[in-house]
Amino acid sequence: MSDSSLLNQLIESLRCLPGIGPKSAQRMAFHLLERDRDAGRQLARVMDAAMERIGRCERCRTLTEHTRCQICANARRNVSLLCIVEQPSDIVAIEQAADYDGLYFVLGGRLSPLDGIGPEELGLDRLEARFNEPELDEAILAISPTVEGLATAHYISELARCSSLRLSRIAHGVPLGGELEFVDGGTLAHAFAGRQGL
Amino acid sequence: MSDSSLLNQLIESLRCLPGIGPKSAQRMAFHLLERDRDAGRQLARVMDAAMERIGRCERCRTLTEHTRCQICANARRNVSLLCIVEQPSDIVAIEQAADYDGLYFVLGGRLSPLDGIGPEELGLDRLEARFNEPELDEAILAISPTVEGLATAHYISELARCSSLRLSRIAHGVPLGGELEFVDGGTLAHAFAGRQGL
Ligand SMILES: [Zn+2]
Ligand SMILES: [Zn+2]
Repeated sequence: MSDSSLLNQLIESLRCLPGIGPKSAQRMAFHLLERDRDAGRQLARVMDAAMERIGRCERCRTLTEHTRCQICANARRNVSLLCIVEQPSDIVAIEQAADYDGLYFVLGGRLSPLDGIGPEELGLDRLEARFNEPELDEAILAISPTVEGLATAHYISELARCSSLRLSRIAHGVPLGGELEFVDGGTLAHAFAGRQGL
Repeated sequence: MSDSSLLNQLIESLRCLPGIGPKSAQRMAFHLLERDRDAGRQLARVMDAAMERIGRCERCRTLTEHTRCQICANARRNVSLLCIVEQPSDIVAIEQAADYDGLYFVLGGRLSPLDGIGPEELGLDRLEARFNEPELDEAILAISPTVEGLATAHYISELARCSSLRLSRIAHGVPLGGELEFVDGGTLAHAFAGRQGL
């Protein structure tokens, strides 16, 4: 059935989802059409709204449909702590695993001059401005310990030198070369407790 | 982040897809939002259209957005052959695997009186009408050999008795390349009962 039917279009479109091959896409399409059209309609509606309305938090750069995300807007978070992560998904992992109640800053990647990713792309000017805010005591680097991640951490530590800030990085348990979002909760909690001054 | 944010709604909605747990749903949401919003918009559009517009073929009951599906509408298919399957996905499997060029009829399930699935729910009145169409020579049952499937096949064979139709069923037995010791007992028994002279 390699045709242009709506069913085939649905199966093809589902393959844009990561990890979904032709067999899984087909199973998903038949499942929704035969057993759960309401869920399919709801998914279509929410997905369209999400693609249109979700932007970046003006303060921490994570994904949100508001000007400020729910963490930055939460008055009970500890404003003296700032955790610097690569991706919005890292925030989800830390919130679920670690006992951290401070704020976040999302770089959106790692320094990679060859790919055109410099300090500007990572919002490091905005991060430097936050380093100079008086309520901030400590910034915690939670960046994957890859070559590019270590270079990024080094660059950030240079930015912090002019301020009175304590700078630390999470340490124990994060495996070298490991992506933060795939690390289990216990390891992440350890890494937070064992953070070390830079 | 167990909140009502649009991001969380998207992750929750993605879990309506079969085989998608919370981790996969989260990975899909971040992937679309950070790397492929156009694909997300396209998927939302196609999914909405599919849920609204895909119905059943008036002739074979498979899923299609047209009055007749592309197979029933194809004048080059062999109208003397009718293959009876349980689900639209069975048609896809047969079209991909077998050298079959006849037509199909989709039951949409198996007889199961306790679940309220009787002859009417499976469209057996319409199937009986097709059995009496003069161009039809042979009907092939491609129904899973479960208890309910065998009962359904038996019921259909009774419907065919009054017509001059040849009725057959696809062979049940040990799958090609299958190790005998891993084949279930029911299948083995079928394979023995259906043994063929060499
Ligand atoms: Zn924020
Ligand atoms: Zn049809």
